[in-house]
This record gives sequence, C-alpha cells and structure tokens, in this order.
Amino acid sequence: MYAFTYHNPVRILFGKGMIAKMAPHIPAGARVLLTYGGGSIKTNGVYEQVSAALKERSVLEFGGIEPNPRYETLMQAVELARREKIDFLLAVGGGSVLDGSKFISAAVPYRHADPWELLSKHAKIKTAIPLAAVLTLPATGSEMNSVAVISRESTRQKLAFGSPLLFPLFSVLDPETTLSLSPRQTANGVVDAYAHVLEQYLTFPNQAALQERQAEAILLTLLQEGPRVMAVPESYEHRANIMWCATQALNGVIGCGVPQDWATHGIGHELTALHGLDHAQTLAVVFPALLRHQRVQKMEKLIQYGARIWGLEESESSVEQAIDKTEAFFRSLGVKTRLHEYGIDDRDFHSIGRILEERDGRIGERKDIGAAEVEAILRLCA
Amino acid sequence: MYAFTYHNPVRILFGKGMIAKMAPHIPAGARVLLTYGGGSIKTNGVYEQVSAALKERSVLEFGGIEPNPRYETLMQAVELARREKIDFLLAVGGGSVLDGSKFISAAVPYRHADPWELLSKHAKIKTAIPLAAVLTLPATGSEMNSVAVISRESTRQKLAFGSPLLFPLFSVLDPETTLSLSPRQTANGVVDAYAHVLEQYLTFPNQAALQERQAEAILLTLLQEGPRVMAVPESYEHRANIMWCATQALNGVIGCGVPQDWATHGIGHELTALHGLDHAQTLAVVFPALLRHQRVQKMEKLIQYGARIWGLEESESSVEQAIDKTEAFFRSLGVKTRLHEYGIDDRDFHSIGRILEERDGRIGERKDIGAAEVEAILRLCA
Repeated sequence: MYAFTYHNPVRILFGKGMIAKMAPHIPAGARVLLTYGGGSIKTNGVYEQVSAALKERSVLEFGGIEPNPRYETLMQAVELARREKIDFLLAVGGGSVLDGSKFISAAVPYRHADPWELLSKHAKIKTAIPLAAVLTLPATGSEMNSVAVISRESTRQKLAFGSPLLFPLFSVLDPETTLSLSPRQTANGVVDAYAHVLEQYLTFPNQAALQERQAEAILLTLLQEGPRVMAVPESYEHRANIMWCATQALNGVIGCGVPQDWATHGIGHELTALHGLDHAQTLAVVFPALLRHQRVQKMEKLIQYGARIWGLEESESSVEQAIDKTEAFFRSLGVKTRLHEYGIDDRDFHSIGRILEERDGRIGERKDIGAAEVEAILRLCA
Repeated sequence: MYAFTYHNPVRILFGKGMIAKMAPHIPAGARVLLTYGGGSIKTNGVYEQVSAALKERSVLEFGGIEPNPRYETLMQAVELARREKIDFLLAVGGGSVLDGSKFISAAVPYRHADPWELLSKHAKIKTAIPLAAVLTLPATGSEMNSVAVISRESTRQKLAFGSPLLFPLFSVLDPETTLSLSPRQTANGVVDAYAHVLEQYLTFPNQAALQERQAEAILLTLLQEGPRVMAVPESYEHRANIMWCATQALNGVIGCGVPQDWATHGIGHELTALHGLDHAQTLAVVFPALLRHQRVQKMEKLIQYGARIWGLEESESSVEQAIDKTEAFFRSLGVKTRLHEYGIDDRDFHSIGRILEERDGRIGERKDIGAAEVEAILRLCA
C-alpha cells in the first residue's frame, strides 16, 4: 500500500426530510447565492423545500447551469456574485450544478486574471467562497469531494481542477429528491459511479487488501441495486442505496494508497467536448474498450474482478468474459456502449489521441497510454 | 436505511515516514503536552521520531497512561496541563493513550466541577483542547473517532463518553511503529476491530446494502490479514492492512444509517472493570455467547454473515457453524474465548447483569437484553 493522506471534512445529511435541517449549518448573516440547473427543482418540490429551509436568509438565485457546465455560463454567475457580494453558495442539483458552483466559488475571488486559468494553468486557489450542496442526482460524487470538471464552449475543452478549499461545507442527500429522475439520468448515475470505482480498482495490485474489498463492496451493491432502481424507480430504498454508492465511489476512501487509472475519464471528456455525449455514455463506451486494450497490464486485477464480482473462475481465460459482462451490465441499464450507436464515426480518433497526449502526457496507472493507444482504444469503441 | 448525519474531519497521515510530516498541522506557538503509556515508545524509536518532528515546539510530557486508562492517572495530567497552560495534546500510543488524552482534552477546561461528570452524567462538552495522535497500536479506532472509554479504579467503573470536539485534528498511522507489537497486542487488535464491525453489522436488515458490504469488506480483510500478521509480524504490508482495517472499523462509515448493537462491549467493559481482562479478551469471550443467545433475533443477518463471510449455505442450519467459526477465529489468533480460561467463575454474573440494566437500561439493537439476559449470556461464556 502506498503512503497517503486522507482528509474529507464534508458533513453529510442523508435521508428523507434532511433539507429542512440544513439551515443551522449556513453561517448566520450569509448572503447566499442559490445555484441550479434547468429548473427541474421548481417542478419536483425541491425548490419549495430549500426555500422553506432558507426562509430567514438573504438569498439570490442563479439558474440555467447546464449539463457539462460551461465557463461561459458560469462567468455570468461570477459577475452576479461579485456585484451582489455573495459569500455563500448553495448548489441545488446534480454533479454539473455542483461542479459549476465549485468553479464560481473559486472564480469570484480570482480577480486579477481570467478564472479560466484555474483550469488551463491549474492556478493555485488561495481562497474560495464557502459552498454547500443539495444533491438531486447521484452520479459524480462531487457532493463529497473537492474536484470539478468544467467545459468551455468556445474552445471545445473539458478540464478538471480541484482544491481542498472546494469541499462542500455540507451536502444534503435526500433520496426522495431523486424519485423523479428519468431512466436515462438514473442509468447514467449508476454507470458513472461504477466507472469511478473501476478507475481506482482495475489497475495493478499493491497489497491494499481493504481498499480492494471496499471498492468491490460498491460494485456489488451497484450490480444489485442498479437493475432494481431501473425496475422500481419509485423505491426510496433502492434510490437511497444508489445515492450512497455514488458518494462513496468518489469521496477518496477507496482511492487511499492505491494506483489509479482515470484514462477512461480523460478520453470520455474529449468525446463529450467534441460530440456532446452524456458523461456516463462516454464511460460506458470507453471502459470496456480500454479494458480490452489494457488487459495484459491489468491482468491480475481483472482476474480478481472476474472472480469476486462476477463469480467467474480465477483465471486468465475468464477475463474477456468479465469485460463482456461489464459492457452487458451498462447495456442492461439502457446505456449504449458503441460509438456508432451515437452516430459517431472514426474521423476524430486520431486528433483526440494527439490532444490528450499533448495536454496530459501519457495516461493510465502505468503512464503507458499515449496518442496511438488512445486511437487504438477508440477503434475498439466503434 | 435510516436517515443519518456523517461528519469526520480527522486528517489521516498514513504510511512509513509520516511522523516526520506532522509538524505543519500543529498550530504555530502551541504549548504541546505529549502523552504516552508505559514507555515502549522510548525503546522502539517512535519517541525519537516524534521528538525530531517537534524539535521547534514547546513540549512537555506526561507518561504512564495505563491500558484501560484511569481517571485517577489522567487527573494528574489534567492538573499538569492546567498549571502549564497546555493548549495542544499529542497522544502517542494505542487506544488507551488516545482515549485518556480525549478525557484530558475535555477535562482541562471543565473547571467548575469534577470532570468525572463527563462520564457519569454525560455532561455536555462545550470546549476542549485540540488533540492529535500518533497511533502505535491498531485496535480501537480512537484515532478517527470522537469517543473514548475511561475507567475509575476507586469505583470499578468503565464508562464511555464522546463529543464532536474530541475528533483528533490529525492522526499519524505509520505501520512501522507497529512492527514491534507483541503477539498478544497484535491479536487483541484484530479481535477488537472484528468485534467493532460485528456490533454494527450483526443486528437486523434495514436495506442498507452498501454499508453491509462495507462491513463485510473489513471482516474479510481481517480474516485474511489477521493470520498473516500473526505468522509474519515483521511484514509492513500485513501491518498496514490491519492498521487501516481497525481505523475503518470504527470511524463511522459502516455505521451510517444502520441499527447497532454494542451489548458485547457493554458486558465486556464490566468484565474488564471487575476482573482486569484485556478489552479484546472480553469481546472474544462475550461475542460468540451473545450471538448464540440472540440467534433468533439476529437470524437474518447471521445467515448472511455465514454465507458471505464463511462461505456457508444460506440457511438457518448454518448459523451455529458461523458462530463456531467466529469463536475458532479468535482462538486461532491465541485469544481465549471462555471465562474459565481466565480463571473467572460465575459469582459476578448476576451482579453484572443488574449493574448494566440499572445504568444503561435494556441494551442491544432491539433493547431486549436486560439483567437476566446478560446473566444468561455470561453463563454461555463460562
């Protein structure tokens, strides 16, 4: 096991009715900016619950943060927050609203230059506006971590950044707020959480026995609860299990002291930036292909994955079957796993590889995935 | 799943060499009291590493905190800390030193009355001296939680207390510091961690699918790594896995939103208070007996435990075997599981039951264990 540091100060308020209990955790006298997305919170009862909880507070609103939140949109919120001297952000929505709000949080005090530098140059974040979240779409884990991914329309970029200053002060996770999610949103969330675990698990063994079991715990739960929540979307209990899985998948615990991959996310972000695929769709497409391409390097963990997750024989001959079953699981949720099913041909495969290697160098847990390998992986996604 | 709140702000510095990296996390100008136990840190190199890390700091020392730390001893440290205007505690040792230091932390500012009230009356803790830990004996989980158990020699009591103010600011977990632990200390730690998981797992199902899997992850890892660390005590990797298991067993994660038992701990504390057994010895004795006594109430989870942990058939007929295997696991580590093996007869069984019910009422996850049931459980431990 590698040496590591772990610190996650996010307070979680989980369960039915918890929105009503969040107000004491917002500083007295705060000037709050409530951020949200396309407006579904105004039709599903969440907005009313949040408004009731904040009734004694000074609150402004900024709506319209889109999926794959855009720099261009978020800078409007930054200007509003600066003008109105906002000193607390309450993000109400899914991972995009949360990630977008993390950008606003860091960008508002970043006045001496273009806040895009926070992403493009990984400029150091020295101060940020405190933020909290009411999560309504379990998927990204943003509610209990300190990173965010932001897109820029004008340059077709999708980049990540992070800082310990961007941990939410608290996050409310009420599974009832997720009962009205569409099948597509629900399935995407399951795939996203599953992929987050795989990125931290399907690498090479380093004797981190507990972290492996903890990762497997989330995978097994998603495999059990994913189909159930698709079949019975009105079930509070299944929604609750999925919600907690998504948080635990990317709050740092299973990543303690282990090698991590994240190449699938890197490639996937480019597919979203260029072709507008949902984030989870890109993961469902790229992960099986990446595992096939990297099967030799990942052999030991793939064998373990096949045995412990899929009940397969503990041998190399089971590995292709484990990958096939993974792809079939994504498809069973209704998420397509091949690029041609999304109408995408091979014309950008070469340039995606070049863009990634130029920006990030070689990626993957062994740093052995460069431009040529990305292109080869994309061909396996076709 | 029940609604819950979760907040654990402890910073973990895990791995070889991490003691040297802790100083920046201690406030500048702090007047530090270094607390420790019987002095093993002065022979195993830990004291030198801590001293080197603190070389620029103002540090006093208080040694001699015993296993099952005593109020009488700790009050001497409280007086020293008050006299010397200590404003930071650094506990270096195992769970007893950490728990004792939590008491010192809360007792120093509790000046208007006897700090024993913090335990006997659960007096509210409004302020506490910040503390941090260098853990040298993985077992209790105290390094990443906010509770402590303190004994009082004069009254033969062993009581628990806690407060969010008692989370360590940081805890250093360097598995190298545990390489010199005796077989008895090592085995006790494994049993303690295993029992902490069982207290939060072997209750009744409430559809907390992930938490169950997370608990099982720790049990499976302890079953794998426990025998290995006993066989190869000089192995950094096995020590590291055991250390991280013990922390994760009682940092709140697996207890989120689930019923909890803790009757075994309650009964065990009385056996320690009256007869001086090691804490883990009491757990190894009481847990199998308690499971046998409560097998009907715990049936569903016992069947799951038998199947998922011991690979038994998923049926009621496997339950006794699952309990037998649990007891055999404790014995395989060298921890005896019957009271007569510790020279304890049945004379206190009746009074232990009475003391517990008078103080805590009926205990267990269903509050169905009173004086008579405690006595019956103790008879099964004979």
